[in-house]
Amino acid sequence: MLARTPHRTLTDQLAERFAERIRSRLLPAGSRLPSVRDCARQQGVSPHTVVAAYDQLLAQGLVEARRQRGFFVRDLTQNSLPGQYQQALAAPKKVAREEGAAALQPLPRGAHTHATALIRGMFHQGAGKPQPGSGVLPQQWLEEARFMPAALRKQIMTTVGATQALDIVSRTLLKAGDPVMVEEPGWSVEFARLDALGMRVLPVPRRADGPDLEVMARYCAVHAPRLYVSVSVLHNPTGHCLTPGHAHQVLQLAGQYGFHIVEDDTYSHIAPAHATRLSALDGLRRTIYVGGFAKILAPSWRVGYLAAPAELCERLLDTKLLSTLTTPSVLEQAMALCIDQGQLRRHAERMRLRLAQARARSVQLALEAGCRFAAEPAGLFGWVDVGVDTDVLAQRMLDEGYLLAPGALFHASRQPSTLMRINFSTTQDAAFWRVFARVRADMAPA
Amino acid sequence: MLARTPHRTLTDQLAERFAERIRSRLLPAGSRLPSVRDCARQQGVSPHTVVAAYDQLLAQGLVEARRQRGFFVRDLTQNSLPGQYQQALAAPKKVAREEGAAALQPLPRGAHTHATALIRGMFHQGAGKPQPGSGVLPQQWLEEARFMPAALRKQIMTTVGATQALDIVSRTLLKAGDPVMVEEPGWSVEFARLDALGMRVLPVPRRADGPDLEVMARYCAVHAPRLYVSVSVLHNPTGHCLTPGHAHQVLQLAGQYGFHIVEDDTYSHIAPAHATRLSALDGLRRTIYVGGFAKILAPSWRVGYLAAPAELCERLLDTKLLSTLTTPSVLEQAMALCIDQGQLRRHAERMRLRLAQARARSVQLALEAGCRFAAEPAGLFGWVDVGVDTDVLAQRMLDEGYLLAPGALFHASRQPSTLMRINFSTTQDAAFWRVFARVRADMAPA
Repeated sequence: MLARTPHRTLTDQLAERFAERIRSRLLPAGSRLPSVRDCARQQGVSPHTVVAAYDQLLAQGLVEARRQRGFFVRDLTQNSLPGQYQQALAAPKKVAREEGAAALQPLPRGAHTHATALIRGMFHQGAGKPQPGSGVLPQQWLEEARFMPAALRKQIMTTVGATQALDIVSRTLLKAGDPVMVEEPGWSVEFARLDALGMRVLPVPRRADGPDLEVMARYCAVHAPRLYVSVSVLHNPTGHCLTPGHAHQVLQLAGQYGFHIVEDDTYSHIAPAHATRLSALDGLRRTIYVGGFAKILAPSWRVGYLAAPAELCERLLDTKLLSTLTTPSVLEQAMALCIDQGQLRRHAERMRLRLAQARARSVQLALEAGCRFAAEPAGLFGWVDVGVDTDVLAQRMLDEGYLLAPGALFHASRQPSTLMRINFSTTQDAAFWRVFARVRADMAPA
Repeated sequence: MLARTPHRTLTDQLAERFAERIRSRLLPAGSRLPSVRDCARQQGVSPHTVVAAYDQLLAQGLVEARRQRGFFVRDLTQNSLPGQYQQALAAPKKVAREEGAAALQPLPRGAHTHATALIRGMFHQGAGKPQPGSGVLPQQWLEEARFMPAALRKQIMTTVGATQALDIVSRTLLKAGDPVMVEEPGWSVEFARLDALGMRVLPVPRRADGPDLEVMARYCAVHAPRLYVSVSVLHNPTGHCLTPGHAHQVLQLAGQYGFHIVEDDTYSHIAPAHATRLSALDGLRRTIYVGGFAKILAPSWRVGYLAAPAELCERLLDTKLLSTLTTPSVLEQAMALCIDQGQLRRHAERMRLRLAQARARSVQLALEAGCRFAAEPAGLFGWVDVGVDTDVLAQRMLDEGYLLAPGALFHASRQPSTLMRINFSTTQDAAFWRVFARVRADMAPA
């Protein structure tokens, strides 16, 4: 119930209660708010308070007034997303049911858009009341603390590692057959995911300063891609960082051709200070920022997150609910503690120093073993040319007990390559480089 | 390296090493094993040991011998899956690359099937050696125990709750447009997920003894569905349990028409003893069993799992790697501990008793408030007819601070309904039922 407090007026509280319900779609688009008189009675407040609260909702664009009929919930999804998404987001229409299941017709698609409202409702209900619609045993019957972190709101959403963030973005923004730009070389699991989702993968060469803008512009003109997937900072596998000028031009192309950008910032904790992020320049208008902690602290916790335009974040949350319901809050809270208490920051500082030392030694050993660096060594990975087919090399090194990452893995089509990615932190051992040099010497140059 | 132990011969160890590499696709289909002489030298064993190990691999059907040329890895995926999947599973062909990215053609689809091999390799490498191809900092640099539970192998796979298991099954077995049978009434999030994935949803009426077999048979004849999604035991929302005779007939239809069945056993811990599972009858031939702990112990841990035919499990694992990489092993280990030490079993026993008492009281209160039970009360949920439109009722009760689960939520199309689902454990409070009775009395009968 509403209660008078020195901090928030009854009007504010009432407006916020309705606003939450509208945002979580427990009050779907098109539904009518209670009459002022009914609402005042139900909430035990004066009609004046209700009118003021409804005015706030009007001002926030959440409801509309219809003459003689009252206040109705607006279709929020129609507000500020680009036109291309509006159709997909249109208010769910009540679908006339076929004559029973025996009609044997599949259901019309898009009939289930409200299914997530019940789930959202469950998590939103912070009140102490037992909820008859709930699908689980009461919290106090079980043995844990909180169900869903407050972070799961508005523009930030937690995910099962950065991987799920990228997956959710693809599933939400794209439909099978859509063209998507990726960086090449790049992380093959991203290519594989897009491929498995049925997308058309458009590889943009990644240079030291950023993506090849000419190729990107031509893709835009010819294929009208919907999304560009990028690791701006400490790009995998090259270690390149996007320059500010290049970032600006990428965003201009995105604006001109209307594509979204998902920026995977997995290596943020070991990144150079002041490295340029597309999301920062863009202010999350057509960018989605993805982060995680797997590279710095606790891979097996699988704590990741994304930040996106608020309306888009709502849709991403729906996709998350459908794919894993929620994410493990216990570990998210543990990670929050590591951040709050400064442990992560101190750990990252130590790690950057340690990695810099490891990189210096690894580069030295690699050069001595006959490798050539195809990109300036930076971050966690070296991108080296070894002069022989690295697919074959990788198989032979596996027999010796070493797992390599051959260059073919980083290309959208698995073409032969003399490049490979090395991890600076795991190539400290001279014994590895001796075996590498021997196996490589046994092979004919490519 | 191999080492003589009293428990396993060198031959067994060598054969198992190759078998693992083949199963994880680090040795892809078509690749050649090292010559007997090379292998003997590399591993420091006698040629006789290598021949015996290769013979084991031959006997296991993992490799084939080609006269004068040596031993080659067979395409495992072609072995035992139904013909309809074989094409999708065909060995990845080396795709001729377009002339650079500037050719501006999207890549041919299916070119990335080996992308997950590197990841699998990372997790399989238990040896102490630092792995140059690895994508992360070394385990000992970080601050946690193990990376991936051993359970992630062969027929069992852990997931982010039962929800991700269902999602992974859909994404692996189906392509957009495929017809899928669901139970109606049923869990609307499952309908919504299938809808979001572009599937055609075929609702099969769920009766007390199981799905309506006549409707199911007609769907099979007309639409040739690929999958049937079922909660056999303590069906949500009705609480019905599948009878053995019905189960047998469902499996016969599945065999006759070649569809898979995913059996969601979310309520297993509160289920009646000896309830019939399709997966048990079928022995995981065309069934996929899905379980979790969210209803009994720790919803926010998000620990779930599935069991599937071994070859299918490999494909499901690939989909998991693409969608969340791994799942949080910390919590899986914690759950394993709860199971090992008997805590889960004891907790579940207490919970079943507590729930039985709650159910008795809730049924009594519901009947007194004018509800009629549309299904025999069992398990966690009651499926009740209240005689008024429960969508409208739910909105009005929300104003009173109570979240209801109206019947429309459990239908594939959101048709009006006088039914609603109640949670026995959260309807113990007479105050709720008084409010319910008052609000309901204010409404016109439907």
